Parts: sequence; structure tokens; C-alpha cells
Amino acid sequence: MSTPKVAVIMGSDSDFEVVKKCLIALERFDIEYEVQVISAHRNPQKIFEYAATAEERGIEVIIGAAGKAAHLPGIIAGITPLPVIGIPIQTSFQGGLDSLLSIVQMPSGVPVATMAVNGAENAGILAAQMLSIKYPEIRKKMKAFKILLNDEVIAKNEKIQEIL
Amino acid sequence: MSTPKVAVIMGSDSDFEVVKKCLIALERFDIEYEVQVISAHRNPQKIFEYAATAEERGIEVIIGAAGKAAHLPGIIAGITPLPVIGIPIQTSFQGGLDSLLSIVQMPSGVPVATMAVNGAENAGILAAQMLSIKYPEIRKKMKAFKILLNDEVIAKNEKIQEIL
Amino acid sequence: MSTPKVAVIMGSDSDFEVVKKCLIALERFDIEYEVQVISAHRNPQKIFEYAATAEERGIEVIIGAAGKAAHLPGIIAGITPLPVIGIPIQTSFQGGLDSLLSIVQMPSGVPVATMAVNGAENAGILAAQMLSIKYPEIRKKMKAFKILLNDEVIAKNEKIQEIL
Amino acid sequence: MSTPKVAVIMGSDSDFEVVKKCLIALERFDIEYEVQVISAHRNPQKIFEYAATAEERGIEVIIGAAGKAAHLPGIIAGITPLPVIGIPIQTSFQGGLDSLLSIVQMPSGVPVATMAVNGAENAGILAAQMLSIKYPEIRKKMKAFKILLNDEVIAKNEKIQEIL
Amino acid sequence: MSTPKVAVIMGSDSDFEVVKKCLIALERFDIEYEVQVISAHRNPQKIFEYAATAEERGIEVIIGAAGKAAHLPGIIAGITPLPVIGIPIQTSFQGGLDSLLSIVQMPSGVPVATMAVNGAENAGILAAQMLSIKYPEIRKKMKAFKILLNDEVIAKNEKIQEIL
Amino acid sequence: MSTPKVAVIMGSDSDFEVVKKCLIALERFDIEYEVQVISAHRNPQKIFEYAATAEERGIEVIIGAAGKAAHLPGIIAGITPLPVIGIPIQTSFQGGLDSLLSIVQMPSGVPVATMAVNGAENAGILAAQMLSIKYPEIRKKMKAFKILLNDEVIAKNEKIQEIL
Amino acid sequence: MSTPKVAVIMGSDSDFEVVKKCLIALERFDIEYEVQVISAHRNPQKIFEYAATAEERGIEVIIGAAGKAAHLPGIIAGITPLPVIGIPIQTSFQGGLDSLLSIVQMPSGVPVATMAVNGAENAGILAAQMLSIKYPEIRKKMKAFKILLNDEVIAKNEKIQEIL
Amino acid sequence: MSTPKVAVIMGSDSDFEVVKKCLIALERFDIEYEVQVISAHRNPQKIFEYAATAEERGIEVIIGAAGKAAHLPGIIAGITPLPVIGIPIQTSFQGGLDSLLSIVQMPSGVPVATMAVNGAENAGILAAQMLSIKYPEIRKKMKAFKILLNDEVIAKNEKIQEIL
Repeated sequence: MSTPKVAVIMGSDSDFEVVKKCLIALERFDIEYEVQVISAHRNPQKIFEYAATAEERGIEVIIGAAGKAAHLPGIIAGITPLPVIGIPIQTSFQGGLDSLLSIVQMPSGVPVATMAVNGAENAGILAAQMLSIKYPEIRKKMKAFKILLNDEVIAKNEKIQEIL
Repeated sequence: MSTPKVAVIMGSDSDFEVVKKCLIALERFDIEYEVQVISAHRNPQKIFEYAATAEERGIEVIIGAAGKAAHLPGIIAGITPLPVIGIPIQTSFQGGLDSLLSIVQMPSGVPVATMAVNGAENAGILAAQMLSIKYPEIRKKMKAFKILLNDEVIAKNEKIQEIL
Repeated sequence: MSTPKVAVIMGSDSDFEVVKKCLIALERFDIEYEVQVISAHRNPQKIFEYAATAEERGIEVIIGAAGKAAHLPGIIAGITPLPVIGIPIQTSFQGGLDSLLSIVQMPSGVPVATMAVNGAENAGILAAQMLSIKYPEIRKKMKAFKILLNDEVIAKNEKIQEIL
Repeated sequence: MSTPKVAVIMGSDSDFEVVKKCLIALERFDIEYEVQVISAHRNPQKIFEYAATAEERGIEVIIGAAGKAAHLPGIIAGITPLPVIGIPIQTSFQGGLDSLLSIVQMPSGVPVATMAVNGAENAGILAAQMLSIKYPEIRKKMKAFKILLNDEVIAKNEKIQEIL
Repeated sequence: MSTPKVAVIMGSDSDFEVVKKCLIALERFDIEYEVQVISAHRNPQKIFEYAATAEERGIEVIIGAAGKAAHLPGIIAGITPLPVIGIPIQTSFQGGLDSLLSIVQMPSGVPVATMAVNGAENAGILAAQMLSIKYPEIRKKMKAFKILLNDEVIAKNEKIQEIL
Repeated sequence: MSTPKVAVIMGSDSDFEVVKKCLIALERFDIEYEVQVISAHRNPQKIFEYAATAEERGIEVIIGAAGKAAHLPGIIAGITPLPVIGIPIQTSFQGGLDSLLSIVQMPSGVPVATMAVNGAENAGILAAQMLSIKYPEIRKKMKAFKILLNDEVIAKNEKIQEIL
Repeated sequence: MSTPKVAVIMGSDSDFEVVKKCLIALERFDIEYEVQVISAHRNPQKIFEYAATAEERGIEVIIGAAGKAAHLPGIIAGITPLPVIGIPIQTSFQGGLDSLLSIVQMPSGVPVATMAVNGAENAGILAAQMLSIKYPEIRKKMKAFKILLNDEVIAKNEKIQEIL
Repeated sequence: MSTPKVAVIMGSDSDFEVVKKCLIALERFDIEYEVQVISAHRNPQKIFEYAATAEERGIEVIIGAAGKAAHLPGIIAGITPLPVIGIPIQTSFQGGLDSLLSIVQMPSGVPVATMAVNGAENAGILAAQMLSIKYPEIRKKMKAFKILLNDEVIAKNEKIQEIL
């Protein structure tokens, strides 16, 4: 069994329902991953150590999911040289505007690749796209995936035509 | 000379113009302070060590000022048991809504006492109010300050009466 | 039995469900408190008298919870020299943006330590942190609390590992 | 000389530039007014006394102008039985959304008649409309004013026709 | 039976649930009213004629309730010299921000006294306050109402004390 | 000389700078137009009569530009059977969010074809597209215009290549 | 059977519930239409070809419905010379502010006639208004429709009068 | 000379001032790039062909910068299997909220790695981080860059210490 290429970190276990869609997306591209619940605010030492050692343990992309003052992905991005993807979790405050702004508005020097609110599936797909720069077999699967996306909508269109 | 009771941390030296008003407020109550520029994203190890040792060095209140994805005060609050005050710095994005939400929307367990956007003077006053719980001489000055605030507006009212 | 150190004021009894979490947090740190329903707009004389006499009755921190045009904490802060913590109650208007802005955007001279929308638990914790400046036993409990927070997330992480 | 019918209160003398347009509007309808700078947060006792005695001094409408956490009109409305008009002063935060929400989102039982951001002229006109319920001569002037408004735009239209 | 002093207009019969609270408030002050469903966009001629003749029919205050692009109160205000109160009806768009801004942001010359989103009860109370300028018996009832408001919260406070 | 096909109405002559771009766009497609300054709130009778007679005078599309509580296009749309295009004028309130929502959030039955904030040029182009349904020569010019748009960006790209 | 004059495109079959109201509106004016599910992001080649050939197939108006980063109507508008109407689909993010801004804020040169969030019925009516420039029988039906709208509200008003 | 690894596309040449910071960032990591001005709305065929052929021409990451209804990065992401980074350009509408939402709120299946408003430098850094998965020499430079970021803030802190 190969080592995980992607680390998926969530700030709270309550984010797991959303984050699952990210894991399914990674599995679609046969990408090994690990999942961790680490809070930037409750486990400050652990998040620091985790992020500082991720690269040497073979992780190539880190995905962080967090809500409200969603500091998790930004804090990880400050520590690791790896690309970091952020998933803003929906909240009851303006549909997650708090999570989105806390993740996307990073200062110069420390980017976080931000997804839509609750955009966990896309986080997995973007991780696959990043890895496809290096791994041709993932690129191949990505191309097949885009054909599948196209075909699915065409099938849905045919169903609508039948209803009308 | 006594040790500083208040630490004022800013995420960028460009925040200094705003933060100055906080220092002036602390001086008004004769409170010793130290000032540091430490970025949560560019100096992750330093901010971790600074926050972890602040209490043992005699700091009693920490003030953090930051803009955009303003993680600084929240990260400090995750590490230290001390009360942490956050100053959201104004940005060109909705007048600083990004800074405000990133600072105020902290998860349960880790509060940041959030001020208005650019509310640096109030951060100094709130620090004084916190310290006044322990130090009666600061409480005394706080009461005098409130009388002064009252008198200043009364004086301004008199000037307006003259203009009319 | 000792006198209350913290006063928890809510603008309406409908805020009690949220405010309860604040009381539980104060109890965790063995802090005596009193609870009052006083409306800034419906009991103007009472709120004035209450805030003006809080300090002499031994109160050391005041917490105010209010929704919509949430003037309560700000009005108290204008009267008392004590530190005031504000809890913006969630509303159906942009998830409580009205409550948040009415509480946090205080003018220079009169700070309110603002919590997240519905951040009642954090209001209790921040009050404990303020009091821990003076009371070493509360500081000690705060440090234990932070270890507990850390351990809880680690336990949750272990559970997620089992599910995967 | 008759006693003032309208009291115009501003929270800060920096609001005077905007508030002037309100005074000019009142003068247009020959309505006597008084102007006061009273801060809800810095002069809490004074604002309480002022609002509590306004009616007995012959004031019939109160106008309050304030910015940011603009509590002034709402606090006055809690104390007086008179109708209260609120002018949200523009700020650098989302063009004054903070002022607007703090003034308009009043709880049931205590209305504030809220104007547009910086809508000081309209506050004067609305005060005149309220007074016109009782004073026929103000109603007469209001009708003339509406004809004037109509004529002014017609004149502007004619100028545009010449340019084209 | 006396003629109505207040006209309550709603843009859609779906607003009636909210508007009812306005009628109850008017009844509390024994103020005669009439209620109309008139859409500014679907009954343009009718709204024009209604507003143009309201004053001569003895109406002294007009209240308009509308949602989304809530033009109704503003259009009435453009036609009548009477004071106009606007009730923004809550929508699924940011909790009614669309209704609020469409009503409150009126141009100079044509004010609408804007209430909170769904603030129908306050619209009735404000109408009573406006009428109390002329009618001493309404002023008397308004003073009693403010005492009632105060007493109600005091009673609620007592209940909370019992629970604790 | 042919009669105007398009009527361009603005709520205030201060909107003329923005509206000019609409006129230039109409001229590009050789479409006759008339321009009027008519305020929905200051000239209520005139706007009613203007909109009610536009179709019989040969107008085929009406464009309305307005800011803040921008009721003008919606009121016109309520009266005329013609298609109505709305231009939200930029304001100091959230960049014109007030104008945009007041124009776009029309109730069912009465659409306004809403442009971007200050999107006056596009209002002219959309009017041309509507007219091109009937007039083949405008369709022909529209196709040429789209080629021109394409070519302009290609030329700009070439200039950037030279700079690099 | 005549060829469709209006093409109704939705980005996802999940938009169909909303889009149905558009189809009913078109049927009210006896306008032939076709319906397609085509995603701007999943069927990029198909949307390009569809939009590029719509005019030559006899389509005279295109309606596009989409949510979130709702690029569909704008992309169609970039390709076709026909007028394009956009329906922003409601989302859980600020009630569909994302859909609305993505559709309405088009750059100069490429307008999209934007409806209210979920304003599908109005999209059908606006399409009918555009077509009524060319087809007198649709204009006639539009005038009858406006009378119907007026009568419906008058009937509702009568019902409310009975309840009171 | 090696072929470009990164394509930087902007929707308008007016975005060049912002985009320059992206180019400087890429140069810092010695990454070859090409720059194109291609509008999603004005050059629909060109953007389609460009995105469809980017991979076969050796491009490994695409960066798209756009403002307002900023469809450019999303449209590219729909066509190419490569990772796409989006830069929302600041606008006068809520500081660029329109650009941000149009780029970040992508539907499932088609991610865009979204940067802060005007976050062009970070787009270059993120592209470097993505490429560093494959190219060890870029990873090495990334690690040096993070040390540099750290050192720069430490130097700024020293300067502030001298001022105090």
C-alpha cells in the first residue's frame, strides 16, 4: 500500500458530512489520502507540528475544511511549502460568508486555493488536478472524468425532453 | 521600570498608523506595554512561541491587530490562557468586513474580544478596563476618563451653540 | 456565599436559550453570577441605574446579550467603568449582521468586547479570562480548560480514524 | 419668539456638516428647532434627562443623527413618548450599513422613523410632515414644496433637452 | 363612527399576516384605520389616485408595507403631502435587505419613515406617536403604553429569577 | 426624420454622465431616441402620463436609470406594456447595492431587464438587441459589433505581447 | 406547428422547478419555446455550438437560468447576437447573491437582461415583451395581461375588506 | 529556451497592473509563462480554442484574472483538465464581491482555485506550489521563499522597535 499523497484536515468532526464528498472525489482518481480532525485553535501545537512535517512524510497536497473564523487552511499554509486547498464550511451567518472571507482573503505570500462554500467535492478534484501535473495516470482519469461530466448532463437533458 | 502588562502585536508594520492610537490609550492609563510585528502566516513558529510564553513573562493582556484574513488574534487566543483583544484593520473589501468576520467569528472555547474596524483606541481602553479588575489605580483613572469623555462632548455642544 | 462577580444581562427573555451557555461556562470556572432581563429600550431608567451601581455592588465584569438594534451592551458600557462583553443574538436578518454591527461598531472611548453571533459560551470564557488577571485560581482552571479542549478534539480525531 | 418644536440631536460634532441640511429643511417650513450635541455613550445621564424632559419643554418631534453603532435615536425613543426620527451617518464600513442597521432594526414597541444614510434633509421634511398633522400652515407649505420639487425637475429636463 | 385617520396599504395580500400586528397596535390606541391591498406595479392608476386623494378624505398618516423591490411606500410618498411610514417585508434574499434598501434609501425631498424588517407593530406605534402631536388622548395612551412595556419586561425578569 | 424608438429616462440630471454611454451605444446602431429627466418621486403625475402614452407615440423600448431607492424603471414597467431596461446608478452605499436591488427584485408580473451597476452602455446594446428582433438592419449591425468587440481585444492582446 | 421563438436553457436539471414558471408564462402568450439542460462548465463545446447556431435556427430570444457562479447566460450572450435574459437561481449563500451578481455584473458590450432571484415567470413575460415589438398579437395579449394583473389585486383587496 | 509552464490570461488589458505582481512572483521561482488578453465574453471562440489546446502545448497551470461577472477562470476550467487559478479583480462594487463570488462559487465538478481580491502575487506563488509537486527545484525555491518571508517581517519588527 502506497503512502497518502493528500492530507484532508477538518477543524471539527461536525464538518465530516461535508468533507466526505472530498474523500469520494479523491477515491474516484485512486488517490491515497489521510484524514485528520485538528483544530487550529484547540490543538495549536499539533497543527503546527502536523503542517511542519507533512511534506517529509510524503504528503503532496493539503486540504483544510473549516467554518466561521476558519483559520485552519491559512495557518497550515503559513507553515508548509505544499499547496493548500481551503473548503469554507457553510454557517448560519450569511450562508458562510464568514468562512469564505476568512479562508480566501489571505495576505500576499501565503495563498490558499479556496473552493466554494461547502465545495468539498471540488477540493478533491482540484487536488487531483494538482497531482496530475506529476502523475500522468491521474491526468488520464481527469480527462475521462470531464467526458463523464459532459455525458451526465446530456443524459439529464434527454430526460427533461421526455417530460416536456 | 516595571515589566509590560500588555503586549500589542500587529500582523504587518503597515498597521502601525492605526495601532498607534492603542498605544496612546494605554499610556493615558500609565500601562506599560511592548509592541511586536509578528505575522501569523509568515512567522508561524515565532507567533507560537511568543503566545506560549507571554503569560510567564508577565503579560496580562494581549492585543492583536490584523487585516483581511486576520488570523493573528485568533491564533494567539488558541495558545495563551490570557484574554486576547482583536483589532480588525480596515481594508478595501467592504470596509473591512473580511477582517471583522475573521476575528469575531471564533469557535466555542476560544474567544477574541473584538473591537470595531480600526478600533485601536478602544482596544487600549478595554485592556485598561480588564486590568482595572486587579489594579485599583487603573480603575480610578478609568472613572476620571469617563468624566473627561462626558466633559469633552459638553464642550463641543457649547461650541455648536455659539455657531448657530 | 460570595457576591456575584459577573452580571449577565439580556435584552429579552427570548435570548435565554442562547445565554444559558454563558452561565454554564461561568459555572465551569466556579464564578458567581447574577442574571437580569433588562431592555435598554423598554427599561431605560432601570438599565441606567443598574449599570451605574454595578461596580459598587461588587460586579467586576458585565455581559450583555441582545439582538437586532442591539444597543444593550453599548449603553451599559457608556455608564459603567467595568469591562463589558457583548453577545450578538442571531436574527433572521443576514444571520445576525444587524446585532453584530450594532454591538461591535462602538465609537472611540467606549469599547464593547464583542463575541461571535450567539457566542454566549465564549462570553463566559472571556469573563473568566478577564477575572483570571486578578484571581490565580481562575487562571489555573483556564489552563486546565485549554488542555481539555485539546484533548476533546484529539478524542474526536481518534473516533474519525475508526470510522474511516 | 416661539419655543422650539423640533430637537435635533447629534452624537458627535463631526456629524454637523450632514445635519445642517436638516436645519435648512426645517427653516424652509418656518419650524423652530434646537440643536444639541449629546453622545448616548459619553453623556449617558444627560441624554437620559434630555429625552425624559423634552415633551414637557414643548418639543414635539426629536431627530437623532449618529454613525457606526448609532444608538442615539433608539435610546431617545426608549425614553420619550414623542416620535423620533433617525439619521444614519455614512461611515467607511459598507457605506454606513452599520449606522443604518443600528438605527432601523429597533425591537417591537420602540420605533425609530429611519431615513436613508445621510438623509438629513429628509429628516427635516418628515418632521414637518408630522407637525403638519397639527399645524395647517405647515401642511400648506408642504404642498407648495411638493410643487416646487416637481417644477425643479421639469426645469432640469428642459436644460437637458437644450444640451442634446 | 369617525373617519379613518390612518391608511394601511399593502402591496400584496400575502403581507397580511405581518400587517395584522400593525392593525392591533393602532387599535391599542383607539385609532380608526382603513386597510387596502394596492400594488404599485399592478394597480399604478389606483395607487396614484388613492395617494392623491388620501388627505382630502381625512387620512392623516399612510403606512405602506411591501417586499422585494418594495416601491409602494416611496411611490405614495411622492404623491401625498402626508407623512408615510414604510414596513419592509422579510424576503428570502438576505433576510429582506432588498425590501429595506428599496424603502429607506429615498432621495432628498421625499422621505419614508422606515421601520425594521417586518416591523409592522412599530409602524402602528409610530403612526400613533405622529398623531399624538395633535391628539392629547393618544399621547396619554402612549405614555401608559411605555409604562406597560417597562412593566412587562420587569415581570419577565422576575420569572427568570424564579427559574435560576 | 423618423420618430424615436427608444426612450431614455433618468431620475435625476446628475445621472447624465453615466447615461451618455447609453446614448452613444444607441447611436452606434443608428437608433433614434429621446431623453427625459423625470423623477418617479418628484414628478409622479408626469411619469404616469409619460409611461401610459409611450407606446402610442411609437416608443418600442424604455430605458430607465436611477440610483438609491431606484423606483423609476419599476414604476414605468408597471404602467407600460413595452419592455423596460433598468440601469442601477452607482451610489456610496455598497457600490450601488441599493440601486441594484431596488431595480432587479421586481415582483412577478412586472419585469425590469436589469443591467450591471452603471451599465448604461449595455442598456443601449440590449435595446438594440430587442429591436433587432423586428429590424434586420439592426441585427446586421449587432453582428458587426460583436466582430468589432472580438477584434478590439485581439488588438489589445497584441499590444500586451509587445510590452512583455 | 411553428418553430420555437424562445430557447430556455438551464445549467442543471435541479433548476427545473423554478424554470417551469417561465414556461407557463410563455404559454400564456402562446409563444413556442424549446427547453435545454446545458451546463456552461460541463458541456462547454455544446453550449458554444448551441448559442452560435440559435439565431439561424429561428430562435429570437434566449433565456438562461443558473445558480452560484451562474456563468450560463453571460457565456451565451458572448456568442449570440440575440437578446439574452438571465434568471439567477436562489442558493443558500445570501439568498442567491452569488447567482445574481454573476449574472448581472456583465462587462460593457455584452448585456444580460437580469431578472430577480428565482424570477422565472418574469423572464417569460420579458421575452414576450421583447417579441411584442415585432408581433402585434403578443402586444395585444400583453395589454390584456396587464389588465388581468390589475383586476387580480382588486379582487384580493375585496376579499381583505370582507375579512376586516 | 523552455516552453511556458504557466498561462496567465486576463479578461481585459486594464487588469494588467494587478496581474504584473503574478508575473513577478512566477519569475521569482524561474517559471516560464505566457500572458494573454482573452475575454470570455468578447472572444468566446478564442477562449474555447485556447483552453482546449493548452495542455497539449505544454501548459501545466492556467491562471485567469477577471472582474465583475468574472466568468473567465470558470469557463477555462470547464474546458481544460489542468488546474485553474482565479484572481478576482477589485471593482467599485463592495470592493470586488462580485468578482469574488463569480469566481469562487463554482459548481461541483469544475473547481477554480480562488485567490483573494487582487491576490495576483499569491496566484503566482500557488502556481509555483502546484508545479513544485513535480519539480524539486521549485520546491527548494519555495522553502527558501518561506524563510525570506519570515526574515522580512523580523526585520520590520526590528525597525518598529527602534521607532518606539
